[in-house]
Parts: sequence; C-alpha cells; structure tokens
Amino acid sequence: MTSSEQPLVAMVGGGQLARMTHQAAIALGRGLRVVAERPDDPAAQISPDVVLGKASELEALRRAAQGAVALTFDHEQVPQDVLVALEAQGVAVHPSASALRFAQNKLLMRERLAEFGAPAPGFWRVEDPEACPWPGSGLVLKTASGGYDGRGVWFPQSKEEAREVVAQLLEAGQDVLAEEKVAAKRELSAMVARSPLGQVCVWPVVETVQENGMCTVVIAPAQNLDESLAAQAQKLAIDIATELGVVGVMAVELFETADGRILVNELAMRPHNSGHWTMDGSTTSQFEQHLRAVLDYPLGDPSPLAEVTVMANIVGSSATNGMSMDERVHHLMGRSPRVKVHLYGKEPRPGRKIGHVNLTGRAADLDAVRQEAERAARWLSAGE
Amino acid sequence: MTSSEQPLVAMVGGGQLARMTHQAAIALGRGLRVVAERPDDPAAQISPDVVLGKASELEALRRAAQGAVALTFDHEQVPQDVLVALEAQGVAVHPSASALRFAQNKLLMRERLAEFGAPAPGFWRVEDPEACPWPGSGLVLKTASGGYDGRGVWFPQSKEEAREVVAQLLEAGQDVLAEEKVAAKRELSAMVARSPLGQVCVWPVVETVQENGMCTVVIAPAQNLDESLAAQAQKLAIDIATELGVVGVMAVELFETADGRILVNELAMRPHNSGHWTMDGSTTSQFEQHLRAVLDYPLGDPSPLAEVTVMANIVGSSATNGMSMDERVHHLMGRSPRVKVHLYGKEPRPGRKIGHVNLTGRAADLDAVRQEAERAARWLSAGE
Repeated sequence: MTSSEQPLVAMVGGGQLARMTHQAAIALGRGLRVVAERPDDPAAQISPDVVLGKASELEALRRAAQGAVALTFDHEQVPQDVLVALEAQGVAVHPSASALRFAQNKLLMRERLAEFGAPAPGFWRVEDPEACPWPGSGLVLKTASGGYDGRGVWFPQSKEEAREVVAQLLEAGQDVLAEEKVAAKRELSAMVARSPLGQVCVWPVVETVQENGMCTVVIAPAQNLDESLAAQAQKLAIDIATELGVVGVMAVELFETADGRILVNELAMRPHNSGHWTMDGSTTSQFEQHLRAVLDYPLGDPSPLAEVTVMANIVGSSATNGMSMDERVHHLMGRSPRVKVHLYGKEPRPGRKIGHVNLTGRAADLDAVRQEAERAARWLSAGE
Repeated sequence: MTSSEQPLVAMVGGGQLARMTHQAAIALGRGLRVVAERPDDPAAQISPDVVLGKASELEALRRAAQGAVALTFDHEQVPQDVLVALEAQGVAVHPSASALRFAQNKLLMRERLAEFGAPAPGFWRVEDPEACPWPGSGLVLKTASGGYDGRGVWFPQSKEEAREVVAQLLEAGQDVLAEEKVAAKRELSAMVARSPLGQVCVWPVVETVQENGMCTVVIAPAQNLDESLAAQAQKLAIDIATELGVVGVMAVELFETADGRILVNELAMRPHNSGHWTMDGSTTSQFEQHLRAVLDYPLGDPSPLAEVTVMANIVGSSATNGMSMDERVHHLMGRSPRVKVHLYGKEPRPGRKIGHVNLTGRAADLDAVRQEAERAARWLSAGE
C-alpha cells in the first residue's frame, strides 16, 4: 500500500457533516467517498468520489462500500434492513446496525438506557391516547424516529391536547414516546469517540443553546459547570458508547437540572452540531476523530486550544439586506479577522443551517467572544 | 448570488499546495478548481473540479478561468506569454504576470530588489565563463529559472570549477546568476499576504532548517531572533510585496548572517513549505489567507495559537521497514496523539516531499517538541 493508497472511508449522506469530514480526510492522505442524493449536496460539491443514491438503497451503499475499509454516516436515516444486509456481506459498518438503532429510535434508546440505569427523564411508550400519562411537570411527545432540529417533537399544554397529538401520531403509523418535561437549567452535550478496539476519548462538556428546538450556539467548555457533574457527563458518554458498542463519534445531549443532575436527552451517533467548535477549538476535530475511530486508528488529543470557544450557527434567512453571501462574508472578515467561517454550500432557505462560525478567546472575555460570534453568524445569515 | 454560488478560485498546478488550498476553500463555501496534469495529482485526487492540462497550455488555463473570479498558482512555472495572454483576455491573474516574473527569474528578482535597496548577497549576471567572478567568500551559481528544492543550484569549490559550471549552463541555454556565498548563521522565512486593495499581513518570522537544499523543518516563530531584526524581516516582506504588486501569499526566504543582518535568498509567490506550520499553529492558515487575498477579502488574523509550532516534512524513502503508510500512520498516532498529520497522496519516491507534520508546544519545551515532530516525520517516511 503506497501513500496514495491510504485507506478509503465511505460516508452515507452528502450533507455538511460529510463535507467537513472530507476536509479532515484529505489530511489523512485520502478523501472521503460520499453517498449523496444530488450532485449539488454540500459534500458532493467538494468531493470527487460521489455515489449518487439514497441512503435507503442497498445497491448504492454496496457500491459505495466497495474498496472502502469502512462505511459510516452523516445522518441516522438508513433502514435497519439495509444496514443488516451490508453487514451480512462483510461491510464494516461503523457504527454497526445494532448500535445505530438506538440513535434511530428514541423509544429503543430510552428502554436500553433505562436497562443500565443511565439518568434520564421518566418516559412511556404510548400505544393508546386514553392511556397517555400527564405528570405534574407536563409532557413532551416525540415520534420514535425521524425527528431532528425540533421536528417530530410536541409540547402539549394539557392532557387533552396530549391525547389529541398522540391520536394523530398513532393514526399516522408512528410509534409515540412520551417524556416527562424536564425543568432544565440548560442543555449540555458530551461528545465521545470510540474505536473498534474500544479506545474512548471525550472532549470537554459543552453548553448548547437552543432556539426553537435547534442548536444555535455552543459554548465550549460549558461555563460554571460543577467539576464532578462534568466528569459524570463524560463518564456517562463513555459508558453509553461502550455499552452500545458505538464506533465513531457520538454526541450525548443532556439536560442539566436546577437541582444539579444531568439527564440524557438524545443520542447522535455521528459528528454533531455540538462538536463543530472542535474544528478551531481543539487539537483534534470531531471530523478527524470520527475518521480515526472508523479507521481503527488511535484517537487524537481532544485538548482545547483556548480557554473558551464559541460556535454560532449561520441560519438561512429570507432577509439579507440586499447583500449576497459573498458581500456578507467580505464585510464580516473586515470586522472580525479572528472569526473562523465555515460555509456549507447550501441554498440559504429560511431556518436552514447553512454554516457556522467559531471564535476562541479567554474565559474572562466570554461575553464579548459570544457576542462577536453571534453577531458574525447573524450578519452572515441576514446582513444585519 | 446564493451561498452555493460563492466565488470560485482556480489554481494552476495540482500539487500539495493546491490540495491544501482546496481544504481551505471548502470552509469558504466553495471548493477550488485545479489545473492538473494527471487525474492522480495530489489536488486532483480530492477536488471534483479539475481541468486536465499543463501549466503552459493557454487553452487549459483559459478554460479553468471561466467562471472563476481569480486564477492563481501552486507553482511558478507558467510561461509569461500565457499569463500575459490571460490578462489581456480579462482574467484576474493573482499574482499578476508582472509580479510573478520576479519569482520565475532569479536574475530579474536580484536586479529588481537591488533597485529599491533590499538587503541581498552580492550578485552578478554571468554571460561569459571567463568573466565569472570569484569573491573571497566563494560563489553560488544558479540558473535564473526552473530550480527548486536544491535543484538548479551549484556550489563550486574553485574559480576553475565555477567557470566550468557556467560554461555548461550557458551552453545549455540557461541564464546564469552568480551570488556571493553567504556565511549564514541560519535561514529564515518571512511570509506575507497582500490583497488587491493593498492590505498586507505578516506571520511571525520562522526558522527554516534545510537538508541538501530542501526545507525539512520549520520552527515558528524563529527562536532567539533579535526583535528588531524580526521586525525588519517582516517590513522587508511587506515592502517587497507592495513594491512588486504581489497578490496572494509570498514567502521571502532569508539568510541571517553571523553579524546580525538579513539578506534575501529567494521569493516564492504562493503558499510555501515554510508556511505549513500555519495550518495548525496560526489563527489563519496560509492557504485560507491566500484565498482571502486573491478573492480580495479582508485578511485574517495571523496570530500564533501556541508559543512554538514545529513543522517537519515527511520525505519519501525506499526503506519503510516493511510497513505500509497506513501502518506507519497507525503506530504514529498511538505514540504521538498531539501530532497533526498532513499527507499529500503522493507516491513515496525517495527524496520527494509526501507530507508534513505539525506539533505545537511551549517555547520552554522546544527541544522536546522538535524532537517529537522530527521523529514523527522520520517514522512516517521510513518506519524507523
């Protein structure tokens, strides 16, 4: 094997996560092969090794896996039967079908985590609207599969409304998960990487700031987080990765409660929005770490490069103040020469994540760093 | 212009510099279009936007420039008549033909720098072997154009040998430059970026360690460098960039003499080996800065991220201790989790640069940092 024959990784999904994984793969001597639905998907724009197809098409995924040492994912929407068929054919699927189903199905995840005692909100599998519980704290209803960025989640205001939502979801053929509403002080994320050999590695726990159910800002590390709670969150991420046999990176999204507990909210078995800060804020980015894990390379150092890093998402807007993205980037760079810009090559439809910025700084300057990062992201979104 | 229609840059040359510029271009919302001779050139392997052709083919370069806002270079070997023809057709060539000729022709460079008094070794244009000078310090003979990594340079031991070399070079149709041999304490490099608007930006001055005329190690910033000499080197780089109208990044390679002077050795008007440390050691990498400059974006912050960064080149070797590059990378990552690996996807022919590593650390630990970086590079070269 020569340098130019470094091992190839194939990734299912042509979104921004695959796009940024390709950037990382270039440094390791090889690009990333991506399975994209359209030639203008974010990753397909910038990688020459593209298999056009849907994540549900076994044939496309089989083709992508040919000559690759591992097949991995930029989203979880790959049917189990396709994953199982690939594994049966000897494809190294990372994370495996059996691990991935816990990221695909929130009910399975809740049941599996409960088995080994991971801290979590109370939950119920609801199969009859009339049997829908109504705890004192209120309820969150979720479809077991398919939701992201706030989609597939309902916050009913009354028992009656909850029953109505459940009835509609059941009628639509959805499995319904009801969770006790958590009075969270804030949301956190613990990111971990795990290799097939079982090496694990965690980044510092971060705070994720949500708007309308979508992560818009990340503060790394989370400030004023009790040290033992941070260690507990990191250990929890390691335990879940180990228990579920995850290979690659995984985000464990957490609630921090007012009374000082952490509770698992969601799992994502892939590079994740809450890990974008690592691109400019850590010795090893989540994208390089994901590749190292699926290649079964030893994992890289996750140390932060600065006291704080703030990530802010650039969200598509219909109002751009008459400026093109090019003009907005131009002005932003003049104003904020330290801000790192990451654009995904996506049409800026309103509400859609089209990029992010990272800014590092000193912990004492966090307010200013966050303000500058958020202003930069808003400017790139809307030119204001 | 939408996000996915961010401005396109085309780069002539498919080598590692274009490869790493593509990585940087992805973050700015667009990949890089490259003009490559072969589909397996380092940049052509990982960018989907490739124009196959030689740097000397006007038609290939014209095609590459179509739809691009700027045409730039990963090497200087583009004939002047081609550059001038492109400019005449309205292509934004950065750096321009008139600037680039000083990087293409060392005689022109010497004469032009002498005009505005840049410090440099004594030099002569030698058109007759018999007229070849022989200063007390000895002589270095160079072909005016075409040399790199120690090629195109001769160190004659006597006046007679010098005359012989000159005679042969003249016979081969070369223009010959003779330079006074400099008793250099060490070699330095001052990298600068300049935009069409004239904004300039310099990184800290670095020390470049050469082996057989090829840069193998860079220490950033150069240690124990007199502050006023460092400032003088940075000002010199800015002055040369401004005087020659350079657009993009430029490396000014320098000698530091035992008596505390700096003298210009060479100019490279493109991302340069002596700037690879910026990928992991500076807020803004040389590749992003080059793109910002040729896009006429405001330049990014060149601040270092650590007290010292050491870059070490991975050089192809015939002895690999029976290990593939994949195995060597595997072991290296286990041993040095903080080392950043950058592989170019090149066949590891002996003496050929096939990648580099970067390692950051504290100035007090420089010896250990350098040792670890050099050991990592040697390991990836030769598995020992």
